[in-house]
Amino acid sequence: MSKNDQKIFADRLSIEQVEEGTEFAPKFDRDGLVPVVATDSESGDVLMLGYMNEEALKLSIKTGEAHYYSRSRETLWHKGATSGLVQKIIEMRIDDDQDAVWLKVAIGESGASCHVGYKSCFYRAVPTGSVPDKGPITLTFEETEKTFDPEAVYGNAPNPTKL
Amino acid sequence: MSKNDQKIFADRLSIEQVEEGTEFAPKFDRDGLVPVVATDSESGDVLMLGYMNEEALKLSIKTGEAHYYSRSRETLWHKGATSGLVQKIIEMRIDDDQDAVWLKVAIGESGASCHVGYKSCFYRAVPTGSVPDKGPITLTFEETEKTFDPEAVYGNAPNPTKL
Repeated sequence: MSKNDQKIFADRLSIEQVEEGTEFAPKFDRDGLVPVVATDSESGDVLMLGYMNEEALKLSIKTGEAHYYSRSRETLWHKGATSGLVQKIIEMRIDDDQDAVWLKVAIGESGASCHVGYKSCFYRAVPTGSVPDKGPITLTFEETEKTFDPEAVYGNAPNPTKL
Repeated sequence: MSKNDQKIFADRLSIEQVEEGTEFAPKFDRDGLVPVVATDSESGDVLMLGYMNEEALKLSIKTGEAHYYSRSRETLWHKGATSGLVQKIIEMRIDDDQDAVWLKVAIGESGASCHVGYKSCFYRAVPTGSVPDKGPITLTFEETEKTFDPEAVYGNAPNPTKL
C-alpha cells in the first residue's frame, strides 16, 4: 500500500467511529478483500457478488466504474473491459462495520452482468419452505434467455468458475 | 455433515452442471461459509450481507426464515431470535458458480435489519468520481433516523462489530 492509498482510508480506531462516524475506514479480510454486492440501479435486482482489494476499491471510487479483484484469475479486473459491459457506479454504500460494499450500477448495451450470458448472475431460484425427502434440491430458472452469446464475447478465455 | 445433509446438496462435478444445471450444488469457502445478500422484497434495498454455513443454509431452506452463521459470535444465528426482526424468505436465488446466495426477505415490525438500529446496514454512502487530495473519504448518512433503539432491544449483548 502506497502512502497515497493510506490517505483515503481511515484507520479503524473504535466501534463508534466505524459504525456511527463519517470516516471511511473499510475492513479487508485476511486475503485483503471486501465483498461487493452490485445491484441494477433501475430494477434493484442483485446482479453479482464480487470482491475488491484496496486497489480495486480505490479505482472504483476514483473512476466511478466498478473494478473488482478476480479471485479465480488472481488479478485486478475492470468489469466490462473485455465484454464492454462496464458498470457505471450510480451510488456506493458501505455497511455498519464497513466490511461490505453495495454498488448501485448502470450497465450499457444489453445490461448484462453475468459471464454465462444472463442479466443477473442469480438466474436460478432455490425452493424454500421444505426440503426433499431424498436427492438434491432442484433449482428453477428465473431467467430463460441469455442476453448475449458468451462465446462471441469472450472467445476461448478460460471460464472463471471453479469447482 | 450427516448423511441427511448430503442428500439435499449435490456434488460439484462439472462447470456445466454448476452453471447451467438444475442441481443445487453450493460451494462453501475454506471456512465452510457462503456469502448471502439479503434485500427487502418490497423496496429492493440491500439490507445486509451475511454468511451461512451448511446448517444455516439447510435451516433457511427448511423453515423459510433466514438463518446465518455469525462469524463474530462463531455460532448459528436465527436472525430475529433476539430482536423479533425475523426475515421471512420470499425468494432464494443462487448465483452462476453457486458460491453466493441472494435472499429477498420480508421483515415484520419496524422492518429493520441492522443491529445499529437502521433499516439497512448500508446506511452510509461513499462519494465516487474523485478522491480527496488528502485525508480519509467522508461518508454521508442516507438514513438519518434509527427505526429502533438497539439498547432496548439487545440490552448489554456484546456488539458484533470487530475492529
